[in-house]
Amino acid sequence: MIARSAAALKTGAQKQVDNGDIGDRIYTLAVELFPLCRSITGNGVRETLKLIRRELPDLRIHEVPSGTRCFDWTVPPEWNITDAFIIDPDGNKLADFQKSNLHVVGYSVPVDKTISREQLEAHLHSIPDQPDAVPYVTSYYEERWGFCLTHRQRERLKPGQYRVFIGSTLEPGSLTYGELIIPGKSEDEVFLSTYICHPSLANNELSGPTVTTYLAKWISGLRQRRYTYRIAFVPETIGSITYLSHNLDHLKRHVIAGFNVTCVGDERSYSYVPSRAGDTLADRVALYVLKHLAPDFVQYTYLDRGSDERQYCSPGVDLPVASVMRTKYQEYPEYHTSKDDLTLISPSGLFGGYEALRHCLLCIEHNETLQVTVLGEPQMGKRGMYKIGSKGRDAGMRRIMNLLAYCDGRQDLLSVAETIGEPMWELRDVVSMLKEEGLLKALR
Amino acid sequence: MIARSAAALKTGAQKQVDNGDIGDRIYTLAVELFPLCRSITGNGVRETLKLIRRELPDLRIHEVPSGTRCFDWTVPPEWNITDAFIIDPDGNKLADFQKSNLHVVGYSVPVDKTISREQLEAHLHSIPDQPDAVPYVTSYYEERWGFCLTHRQRERLKPGQYRVFIGSTLEPGSLTYGELIIPGKSEDEVFLSTYICHPSLANNELSGPTVTTYLAKWISGLRQRRYTYRIAFVPETIGSITYLSHNLDHLKRHVIAGFNVTCVGDERSYSYVPSRAGDTLADRVALYVLKHLAPDFVQYTYLDRGSDERQYCSPGVDLPVASVMRTKYQEYPEYHTSKDDLTLISPSGLFGGYEALRHCLLCIEHNETLQVTVLGEPQMGKRGMYKIGSKGRDAGMRRIMNLLAYCDGRQDLLSVAETIGEPMWELRDVVSMLKEEGLLKALR
Amino acid sequence: MIARSAAALKTGAQKQVDNGDIGDRIYTLAVELFPLCRSITGNGVRETLKLIRRELPDLRIHEVPSGTRCFDWTVPPEWNITDAFIIDPDGNKLADFQKSNLHVVGYSVPVDKTISREQLEAHLHSIPDQPDAVPYVTSYYEERWGFCLTHRQRERLKPGQYRVFIGSTLEPGSLTYGELIIPGKSEDEVFLSTYICHPSLANNELSGPTVTTYLAKWISGLRQRRYTYRIAFVPETIGSITYLSHNLDHLKRHVIAGFNVTCVGDERSYSYVPSRAGDTLADRVALYVLKHLAPDFVQYTYLDRGSDERQYCSPGVDLPVASVMRTKYQEYPEYHTSKDDLTLISPSGLFGGYEALRHCLLCIEHNETLQVTVLGEPQMGKRGMYKIGSKGRDAGMRRIMNLLAYCDGRQDLLSVAETIGEPMWELRDVVSMLKEEGLLKALR
Repeated sequence: MIARSAAALKTGAQKQVDNGDIGDRIYTLAVELFPLCRSITGNGVRETLKLIRRELPDLRIHEVPSGTRCFDWTVPPEWNITDAFIIDPDGNKLADFQKSNLHVVGYSVPVDKTISREQLEAHLHSIPDQPDAVPYVTSYYEERWGFCLTHRQRERLKPGQYRVFIGSTLEPGSLTYGELIIPGKSEDEVFLSTYICHPSLANNELSGPTVTTYLAKWISGLRQRRYTYRIAFVPETIGSITYLSHNLDHLKRHVIAGFNVTCVGDERSYSYVPSRAGDTLADRVALYVLKHLAPDFVQYTYLDRGSDERQYCSPGVDLPVASVMRTKYQEYPEYHTSKDDLTLISPSGLFGGYEALRHCLLCIEHNETLQVTVLGEPQMGKRGMYKIGSKGRDAGMRRIMNLLAYCDGRQDLLSVAETIGEPMWELRDVVSMLKEEGLLKALR
Repeated sequence: MIARSAAALKTGAQKQVDNGDIGDRIYTLAVELFPLCRSITGNGVRETLKLIRRELPDLRIHEVPSGTRCFDWTVPPEWNITDAFIIDPDGNKLADFQKSNLHVVGYSVPVDKTISREQLEAHLHSIPDQPDAVPYVTSYYEERWGFCLTHRQRERLKPGQYRVFIGSTLEPGSLTYGELIIPGKSEDEVFLSTYICHPSLANNELSGPTVTTYLAKWISGLRQRRYTYRIAFVPETIGSITYLSHNLDHLKRHVIAGFNVTCVGDERSYSYVPSRAGDTLADRVALYVLKHLAPDFVQYTYLDRGSDERQYCSPGVDLPVASVMRTKYQEYPEYHTSKDDLTLISPSGLFGGYEALRHCLLCIEHNETLQVTVLGEPQMGKRGMYKIGSKGRDAGMRRIMNLLAYCDGRQDLLSVAETIGEPMWELRDVVSMLKEEGLLKALR
Repeated sequence: MIARSAAALKTGAQKQVDNGDIGDRIYTLAVELFPLCRSITGNGVRETLKLIRRELPDLRIHEVPSGTRCFDWTVPPEWNITDAFIIDPDGNKLADFQKSNLHVVGYSVPVDKTISREQLEAHLHSIPDQPDAVPYVTSYYEERWGFCLTHRQRERLKPGQYRVFIGSTLEPGSLTYGELIIPGKSEDEVFLSTYICHPSLANNELSGPTVTTYLAKWISGLRQRRYTYRIAFVPETIGSITYLSHNLDHLKRHVIAGFNVTCVGDERSYSYVPSRAGDTLADRVALYVLKHLAPDFVQYTYLDRGSDERQYCSPGVDLPVASVMRTKYQEYPEYHTSKDDLTLISPSGLFGGYEALRHCLLCIEHNETLQVTVLGEPQMGKRGMYKIGSKGRDAGMRRIMNLLAYCDGRQDLLSVAETIGEPMWELRDVVSMLKEEGLLKALR
């Protein structure tokens, strides 16, 4: 199964390499974005969105003022930071923000004072089980300050006085998000959402916005585009809640399928988290694509959710949003630590995530409800499509006849493809040919 | 699985022992009721119901005259008996009713004569495979007389003349049953039925009426009672048919779930017989409770039915009545023999049956359709319910968020609890807290 | 499982042998029909139908002129042939039509000339993997001529000049099919279709028309016949399409179940191809019968279809037609070769196919929706149907009580029989008895 998956993707990859080395380009964008200090608000988010707008010129950047009420939430003050460090009793600089923005607890209030090691301890975060990893910690809605460092370093701290400095500001400002609408023939929309609030972290999460950027480029380049595509680059949780509160009626009316794009950068596995409903078009397509491209994928339940599907699928919102991932957040040891860096993701890993999602979009674009136009089997012989033979038909003719046998105007092509066991993207040419022959017509 | 079940019940048992040693009290009642000669009519039934009324003062005792037509049946003449025995050729008294009421075939007509051993044989019942057990035999609707004895004893009978005496009467009288209505806020009813027609037998059947008595005491003591409880102590078959024929319209309109309480006294296993429909609230609750309390329970089908669910679930009656049992009738070697005595049941066995059924009633009482009141996830931080952390949420918060994620106003709490894998009785406090926070409201 | 199946059929067979040796008579008819040169049109079809009319005097023979448009198809010119052969360079006659009509490609245009071995090669058909078998080849809609021979013979052909002669005609004429309507009480119909276009081939296909002939005789002899039976003997594909195009509205309105009768003559296995819908009455009955008579049967899907169900189940036609077979076309090595001869089928094999289909028809005839007439269990005692006993009921009473417990006026008898695990044909007497007792009534 793994072999087949790898082969399937390799085939795809081979084609793509010829088409411009997409995996490398996604990785290069991730490298460029990596050092920025993102959070749920602030200039790191703005710089990130500006770099993405360089790739997607039609990206619209929105600012939502601090204090804006969004459902049960309120947009918090804007957080910015220029520097942070600890000076130990010997004068050494530790937990240096300039070296890694993970060293500061996200949304730390400013501080500049000298305290004892004992007092410092209450503000330190490390992981005893992973003594060489710096954890990623935030405190958005409770005012705190703190530093993150490796457990090894923490254990070496001597008694004495420590200077702690965090050069941050928490002031009225705004929450920043990006939105790209790529119009199609239909007002019905396919929705992609990804998040831009994680600082220097790679699989979770720069893979999401970078892969989404290249999916948007691919969508923009499609000659025929049936659906309108709505792509949101938002800070996680507060960003998706803000976006929903501004667009809920429209989204509920128009979104036929959506994907929360996250953790699509490593090479270890493929995985899937369903929508809350579990049987939406997004779920059907995600399962179909993963079964064909990566049949050894890991299937989670909605109980394993942990990203913005928590908002998109919440009761009363109920959008058809599923997650197609490589290795899922919370399921790998480097998750939310400094070890989730650019060595954890790869051009090949990112390309795999891109291809899985691109095939999902392909399936949605090509899905339609087809009906055969004649009663009984069509006479393929008079159309030059039937060969003399004594022992049954060849595979190509079998595929055609199976397709015609199930296109009854009731089930969609995705369902037909599932029944007849054919990859939907390989049926495209056959469908076109049969439409040209006048043997199939699309109902909707 | 067994270990978990035992532990779960032990925990419950431990609590209960502190609350008054319920298992011992149920057993003590069974010991007191054991010697009475019960049948489908007669004074043994009346004495049994009077003892139960001592425990449940509101129990109403009904008398239905012999000859009353009930659906396809007619209430038979009343049977009473004072003595019965056989005197063998040597003058020894055998099959002495004073020693065990099982020695007489139930509903035997009176007899007093001397016959040969050969003539006697046609009136004897024993079990060759279980030579030390006296079988339990009845002949309610065909006039017969007979004695039951051990096969070992039967084989020792010498040739010669035997005096047979049965001091019984079969005369116009009535069928006696007990009924207890414990009113609740709602006119909707939960129905419990158990039977009081078996003579000196323990698991099948004194466990049913004794456990039901203590369930009724527990229900009566509930401070808040959502549903009305209807509890019937009837002779099996003719009693449930009589009860149905008098109450059918009311029962069909009001009963939302019911249980036939039988075989709830031994320690060997738990088991379940579904209603005929198989998916009623009673079935859902029974399966849910047994999966949590006794996951190694034996699941039968309606084809394995054998008690009053035969009437309650019959076509046109169609009440939602399931059976939650310890070891099922017909499935253990002592069934319907003198070996089903007070050594087969135990305080612990009875308490297990009581607890399984009590949890079913708890689930029904607490089941409601809840809806979260905000769109998107609620902000738990501002409510002081969210802690700083880097690696996901703790189990308590996970339970709360899962509950909120599924309370969509469509599925009931039982369904939500099944989905999120939490024991419903442990969700009660969380639901109360979230209602107080204004985050959940009950729709119905 | 095989043993049980064999035993079940043997029991049936035993009865049938006493009733006239059906298997032998079907086989004898197959022997008589075997030499005729059938195709999709022509005198071979007419002679076949005349022999069948000898058995079924009410058979109506229809002629549909060449050129008639039928859905997407057109009735082709009529093909007749008197002789065909090859003369090799040594004067030997090869591929002699007089010895086997398989030697000529079906629908070959006439030819009479002398050509080189190289030129001849393009017109030869053989099977390298089965060097002793002559393949069965046709070319109905593309004008060709050709010969079929064993691969061993083909390899021995010397260089030199070969005379090729095919004495065929392809002229305006008609397509011939047979139709038998056996009226019943209801206008609703059970439909049997079988095909009469294969030349000297046995399992696929003389088993179909011969077994169908004897099924028709059995149906005609039924004293009580609930449904009308429509039986079509048609050439495959073009014949079923023609038949559908002439009768579609009627068939769609009246056919409640149908079977395509093919490959019912060998002894190796039983098998089943569902209708496209998969859950029609024909499918339910086919699965039910095979589970009881031949539980080791092979279950195919509609993707494995290959006969006239391709037309009957096509979108917009959607008739409830399933296939109950012995060893399926395309699934045995002799398929469509000279090895599928009279040694491949047998009286016992044909009788097995006949019995499986006859039981399907029996189940359809006897299927009805029954309702018990009393509330609660009926009192069987007063009807003399209940015996004294201590340990549960006997199997016969259990069957009766299970039947009564499920006859709720909603599910049909087939569904009840499935639930209670009883062969439907063994419930017939019990149903009659309970109807006479007034305990069951048929709703529809």
